[in-house]
Amino acid sequence: MTSASPPYTDTGLLAPEWGLSEAAAETGDHAYLRALLDAEAALTRAQAALGLAPAEAAAAVTEAAVPANFGLRSLAARTPAGGNPVIPLVADLTAAVGEPYGPYVHRGATSQDIMDTATMLVAVRTLELILADLGRTERALAGLALEHRDTPMPGRTLTQHAVPTTFGLKAAGWRSLMLDALDRITRVRYSLPAQLGGAAGTLAAFEAYGAEDPGALTEAYARELDLATPALPWHTLRTPVADLAGCLAFTAGALGKLAVDVLTLSRTEIGEVSEGSGGGSSAMPHKANPVRSTLLAAAARRAPQLAATLYGCLAAEDERPAGAWHAEWEPLRDLLRLVGGAAAHAAELTDELRVHPAAMRRNLDATRGLIVSERLSAALAPVLGRARAKELLTELARRAHEEDRPLRELLAEEADLKGVELDDLTDPAHYTGFADVLTDRALERR
Amino acid sequence: MTSASPPYTDTGLLAPEWGLSEAAAETGDHAYLRALLDAEAALTRAQAALGLAPAEAAAAVTEAAVPANFGLRSLAARTPAGGNPVIPLVADLTAAVGEPYGPYVHRGATSQDIMDTATMLVAVRTLELILADLGRTERALAGLALEHRDTPMPGRTLTQHAVPTTFGLKAAGWRSLMLDALDRITRVRYSLPAQLGGAAGTLAAFEAYGAEDPGALTEAYARELDLATPALPWHTLRTPVADLAGCLAFTAGALGKLAVDVLTLSRTEIGEVSEGSGGGSSAMPHKANPVRSTLLAAAARRAPQLAATLYGCLAAEDERPAGAWHAEWEPLRDLLRLVGGAAAHAAELTDELRVHPAAMRRNLDATRGLIVSERLSAALAPVLGRARAKELLTELARRAHEEDRPLRELLAEEADLKGVELDDLTDPAHYTGFADVLTDRALERR
Amino acid sequence: MTSASPPYTDTGLLAPEWGLSEAAAETGDHAYLRALLDAEAALTRAQAALGLAPAEAAAAVTEAAVPANFGLRSLAARTPAGGNPVIPLVADLTAAVGEPYGPYVHRGATSQDIMDTATMLVAVRTLELILADLGRTERALAGLALEHRDTPMPGRTLTQHAVPTTFGLKAAGWRSLMLDALDRITRVRYSLPAQLGGAAGTLAAFEAYGAEDPGALTEAYARELDLATPALPWHTLRTPVADLAGCLAFTAGALGKLAVDVLTLSRTEIGEVSEGSGGGSSAMPHKANPVRSTLLAAAARRAPQLAATLYGCLAAEDERPAGAWHAEWEPLRDLLRLVGGAAAHAAELTDELRVHPAAMRRNLDATRGLIVSERLSAALAPVLGRARAKELLTELARRAHEEDRPLRELLAEEADLKGVELDDLTDPAHYTGFADVLTDRALERR
Amino acid sequence: MTSASPPYTDTGLLAPEWGLSEAAAETGDHAYLRALLDAEAALTRAQAALGLAPAEAAAAVTEAAVPANFGLRSLAARTPAGGNPVIPLVADLTAAVGEPYGPYVHRGATSQDIMDTATMLVAVRTLELILADLGRTERALAGLALEHRDTPMPGRTLTQHAVPTTFGLKAAGWRSLMLDALDRITRVRYSLPAQLGGAAGTLAAFEAYGAEDPGALTEAYARELDLATPALPWHTLRTPVADLAGCLAFTAGALGKLAVDVLTLSRTEIGEVSEGSGGGSSAMPHKANPVRSTLLAAAARRAPQLAATLYGCLAAEDERPAGAWHAEWEPLRDLLRLVGGAAAHAAELTDELRVHPAAMRRNLDATRGLIVSERLSAALAPVLGRARAKELLTELARRAHEEDRPLRELLAEEADLKGVELDDLTDPAHYTGFADVLTDRALERR
Repeated sequence: MTSASPPYTDTGLLAPEWGLSEAAAETGDHAYLRALLDAEAALTRAQAALGLAPAEAAAAVTEAAVPANFGLRSLAARTPAGGNPVIPLVADLTAAVGEPYGPYVHRGATSQDIMDTATMLVAVRTLELILADLGRTERALAGLALEHRDTPMPGRTLTQHAVPTTFGLKAAGWRSLMLDALDRITRVRYSLPAQLGGAAGTLAAFEAYGAEDPGALTEAYARELDLATPALPWHTLRTPVADLAGCLAFTAGALGKLAVDVLTLSRTEIGEVSEGSGGGSSAMPHKANPVRSTLLAAAARRAPQLAATLYGCLAAEDERPAGAWHAEWEPLRDLLRLVGGAAAHAAELTDELRVHPAAMRRNLDATRGLIVSERLSAALAPVLGRARAKELLTELARRAHEEDRPLRELLAEEADLKGVELDDLTDPAHYTGFADVLTDRALERR
Repeated sequence: MTSASPPYTDTGLLAPEWGLSEAAAETGDHAYLRALLDAEAALTRAQAALGLAPAEAAAAVTEAAVPANFGLRSLAARTPAGGNPVIPLVADLTAAVGEPYGPYVHRGATSQDIMDTATMLVAVRTLELILADLGRTERALAGLALEHRDTPMPGRTLTQHAVPTTFGLKAAGWRSLMLDALDRITRVRYSLPAQLGGAAGTLAAFEAYGAEDPGALTEAYARELDLATPALPWHTLRTPVADLAGCLAFTAGALGKLAVDVLTLSRTEIGEVSEGSGGGSSAMPHKANPVRSTLLAAAARRAPQLAATLYGCLAAEDERPAGAWHAEWEPLRDLLRLVGGAAAHAAELTDELRVHPAAMRRNLDATRGLIVSERLSAALAPVLGRARAKELLTELARRAHEEDRPLRELLAEEADLKGVELDDLTDPAHYTGFADVLTDRALERR
Repeated sequence: MTSASPPYTDTGLLAPEWGLSEAAAETGDHAYLRALLDAEAALTRAQAALGLAPAEAAAAVTEAAVPANFGLRSLAARTPAGGNPVIPLVADLTAAVGEPYGPYVHRGATSQDIMDTATMLVAVRTLELILADLGRTERALAGLALEHRDTPMPGRTLTQHAVPTTFGLKAAGWRSLMLDALDRITRVRYSLPAQLGGAAGTLAAFEAYGAEDPGALTEAYARELDLATPALPWHTLRTPVADLAGCLAFTAGALGKLAVDVLTLSRTEIGEVSEGSGGGSSAMPHKANPVRSTLLAAAARRAPQLAATLYGCLAAEDERPAGAWHAEWEPLRDLLRLVGGAAAHAAELTDELRVHPAAMRRNLDATRGLIVSERLSAALAPVLGRARAKELLTELARRAHEEDRPLRELLAEEADLKGVELDDLTDPAHYTGFADVLTDRALERR
Repeated sequence: MTSASPPYTDTGLLAPEWGLSEAAAETGDHAYLRALLDAEAALTRAQAALGLAPAEAAAAVTEAAVPANFGLRSLAARTPAGGNPVIPLVADLTAAVGEPYGPYVHRGATSQDIMDTATMLVAVRTLELILADLGRTERALAGLALEHRDTPMPGRTLTQHAVPTTFGLKAAGWRSLMLDALDRITRVRYSLPAQLGGAAGTLAAFEAYGAEDPGALTEAYARELDLATPALPWHTLRTPVADLAGCLAFTAGALGKLAVDVLTLSRTEIGEVSEGSGGGSSAMPHKANPVRSTLLAAAARRAPQLAATLYGCLAAEDERPAGAWHAEWEPLRDLLRLVGGAAAHAAELTDELRVHPAAMRRNLDATRGLIVSERLSAALAPVLGRARAKELLTELARRAHEEDRPLRELLAEEADLKGVELDDLTDPAHYTGFADVLTDRALERR
């Protein structure tokens, strides 16, 4: 380590997934600095509220604890020595408060109390943004589902046309994932606790400074920050971090499902949807790249492994682990950012998504009618007997392919089927099963 | 692929983490076979209940759908061709039912309906075992916390003694993680749904066979299996799998925290706890290896990445993905097994854990009294002034180390401190802060 | 843990990716048992070769060390107690050898010596299979590249047609990944070492039993097994395991690239390739699922996280870690199996892949000629000036789309372009750049 | 996305693992900007060298392509629209060059050509730093191994004392991992290729602009940048990225092994080593935290999952994937930084590591002599018979523990052992096996 001050600045050059989002602003170094200062000020105020510090100390610390008073690069430069940014921050904040109230800064606390609390503040602030963007996305998808409740399109399994479905059901499915994500994030958001334990989680120093009830102190502190009050200090009981990992990895994956579908349906040969504002190419004016879904898909590829790192950090030894705590910071921030950016992209993607029912209709004929063979199996069995029906369909499927003729036409030539109403039976748009009912029911969920 | 039948059998040789557990029995190929058959039989029964199949068909399928009628190796051998075990199973089950009810087997369903439903059955059965073992573990830990509410021991941060804590608080912390795991698993366990969607999630074939209400059918099916009724077919809306991934990765990590602490405290030089029945070594009769915590730690290293694979599979394209579904099967089973085995090991580990308060007491003196320096800083500041107190303690810390003398002794030689009651102030057992209150409060949680 | 014997048997029901492959046979519990016995016998023979044991002991151990003499379920049942299968195996082997040579079984060794060595034997045997199947795949792809050196098809970026390419270049690219995989696996395969260190890696017990030169002993042992001789015991220096993780994760990914391309090109709307023998669907006779590439894609989703677990186990504390070693066993076996199965599937997939140049040609026209717009930009700039050329192309791109007319036709109507030879310029098949030369060059690599 | 310019700046506040390292400087946004510009300028120069552009164009582009001419925040703000930073950079660079040579900027290339090439430049520059720091680390460890070749210490397995080893052998083992890392990184460093393929990897636009030999062009380009010449464009053949993932994950793990050992040996109760300059605590003057090894351990927890993401991106569909490429950027940068920072920390850690042979000697007696029981088993068997020897040792082990007496003393009381030379036999320092020879041999490796 040879540098005296941090030798780099990142500002989003490699981060189209999230670099411009509001989540980026809430997770940058400045946002962490603000949250760290919020935590320190809240701690002194909580102590003052319980008579453990003079009200003047609380006022002085609160006044000093504003980001503008601190040099981010200088703090960053002094972070590696002790292994966390709170150590230099406390020094600077104490100096900024000055005498006589400087000694009340961070009194009784350990670095992890402040760092974990600040991380929870950053998480709450970012989750709020994510909730708002998922809400926008969900509403846009509800609109699409309603609008396309009866728009038939090919259902695809293992890349092949299977039977028809509707775009309404597809959009309703995407929306149900958004609702699942909203549920999971909301539950976690309101559970995130302040951290207060002192050097080894016994709150002993607070007692040494006069506290009589650890519950009252922790509650006052949490209330100042609008965080939940923890039952125990959680320095090495990392449930809140794991819960964040889980709900964020889920959300990234839910958005990833939306993305891979949009990407597939956007393919040049398929063309059933397109992003409202595709990324262009100067040399290829016809190209309108599905950039937003590409970025969502990229985020979905990264989030699970970031979550894995956080789950792995649950195995945190002792009263503060040597590595498992430090290894959480950047991955958790990365997850918050990635999902924050992805949710913002998704909101715009779904707002602007263009749907092409004509292409869907065209594609429904790509198998020359075979996309309804399942229905024909069921319908012709009573007429021809199961064995004969199956045999006939297999034969006609082969011929439709080889002779490049619609199955409808071949069926009409079969003497056995004279009385059968083939028009309805072979129309893919008439074999969407309960897609409509399912869509309606799904839209009832709030 | 050259073999006609599966060329291997695994029976636990590499799996001390879980090989002997009840979870192993509930997740083996036989257990999956049973669950697949349960799903098929339930489907026919549900159709019969709605008048879509004769009651005799339901009885015939239920009677035939018992594992003894099927050859596991033969099924396994035919699995790769179509990519899943349901295809050969349906063929064999249809043959086993015979005429006239064979055609009612699997009627209207797709392979994924059965496979996903079976997976949920296996999950529910294994989660029940896990809940029971976590419950045992939690109770054992509650007992330890109560018994050692006032047993002082060193609190350790970044591998170094920080300030004292109690073993009671430590055990209460472990227990709180078990309760968190119980909460999370219980919530997921009751949410796991049956799967029913047909070829592309529209339930179209069921309609072709006469169903009028998809909700009624799905509900009847789910009721037969005691699973939740899904709002939509979830072939590519994989919330249930992701939820399992999350709660299982959390539990593995929670058990991993217990494990790394037991491992540390078991170290030859520390010796504060020992496993009841350590793994022995013939050549080294003194060795009693902490085998159970070793196996828990191993499980905790593996679970996060298995969960990551499952979260990654959320990005499942189309109405059935080409890979993202298949990639779930083994990792989900592995997670269920690993956590099932780990929970069983944990229950026995905590039941039998031996705690050595004398070693804890001995280790509290390892820093020659410096473990209470935080308290002395607080207590001496009013006596000596903050600056002088700090200076003195730093000096005495150095001397205690260099002269190998207890801090208590050095403090007693200081003229300034004549009136100070040093015995209490320097006794590590008297500086455990609110550990007792925190333990009590934590034990109130159920 | 309540069971006395392992309560399950796995035989491939959930493993279409690898269950039927030869790699499955080489990685099953029986294969590990064989390798463990091979390692024990080799150790006694090596000691005999150096005069540290009677030749009769070596013969007796070698004779007894055959799988048929051992009960796999019984061994598995006794594995959890000590945490590894070598402890019960040594007991059984010693008993099988009987007096007077029983005491020479495992003499001086530690469980990890045998377990690690057996794992390397299993790895070598499986890598040989993988190398053979990758070789077959590479040759099939070379054939495809040669055959389709000049078969034009759309080049696709971010799901959209960009400019034309050839199927030959695509196949040559896939092949280059196979060659990369062959290189990486071959390098690792010949580096895999035997393990011999004794209780803590000092080989002290061997010295106690008379060994004079640790190098000679280790070399003799490694020679018996045709493994590399390690410079140091590697109980906690896990380079060989990490190297396996790396080359296997790479290979899975390389095969995954092949798979995702085949899956895309197999889509119903694209239809440019198809698997020789698709997985069928009884209800949908037209469906021919790309099952092999689906299974390859599934393997590619799982391998990276398995490798991550193994890389994570490098951080193995002490002379034998409490968890990091045990956590390697199943993930390494899973990786070997998955990649072994994937390589076998890939060999058959590429042997049987059907290529449809007519569909490629048809798809080249999907953008109404805009797929050559890059070329037109370059070619028309000297004629019209860069700005005007760009403007014209953008305008005609819009009109081609709106009027549904070929770009060729619109260009022909432009007065400015009267003299320009449009036929060549607008033929996608004439804008494949250096695809031919690149293919030729790539095929020179062996 | 509501912001017009990137709303955040990161400068290391959360990154003690790497924030101050030279690797941070080489991987920041500025370093990427420089590398992107280097790639653009090299491309024009390569074209000029082959007569495809005027020499003046090459000079003009080279002159303009300096970071000072570009606004990082502005570029970052325009990155999301097209999904990569090259699109706005080309616009700005073209403007900076102006007429008449602006059109030669980026001529024939695609964004990925520049982005991938720049990434390789950043990688090479960072790997050079890592190689230097690993070299320093290796040399420091060689010094420690030599110095402590005969310093005995407890060998520990599964947290328990097993048999003695030496600190020399331990250091030699750490060093062998550094050499393995150096080998693997060096091999990758010289293989990293330039990227040049044009829109879909056929180099078609270069041909349209007059290139005759794709090999010559690519070679000239690579030569300008001192990168390897690729056999094929590798837009979706991601061997270089996977190779980086592998060697970096390995190095992180190798450093992680060093870290977990230092952390264990630094524990208050063990005290066999200490970091030269521990991180302090104001409230606890006795604490000297092993901060560097903590940070190494944190890096080792994160690297495997970052590598997993990169291995997962091998499955990149088409000629440019929709997500798998974008998902590489940040994880690869994170890996380079983490390992760069870790290597720098390791170099200082090993330079300054303090070794405490007296503590090692003290700890060797922690089992009251039982640490040599393996030796006694071997030595007493010929004297007493194997069965009796084992029985006696088990009995004395029990008594040593219960009576708290040294094994040596108990053995001396045994009549059967009168003639046995117990001093040597029971001295842990005399039972280090071949640790010395192994250390010597390991040090011969360069």
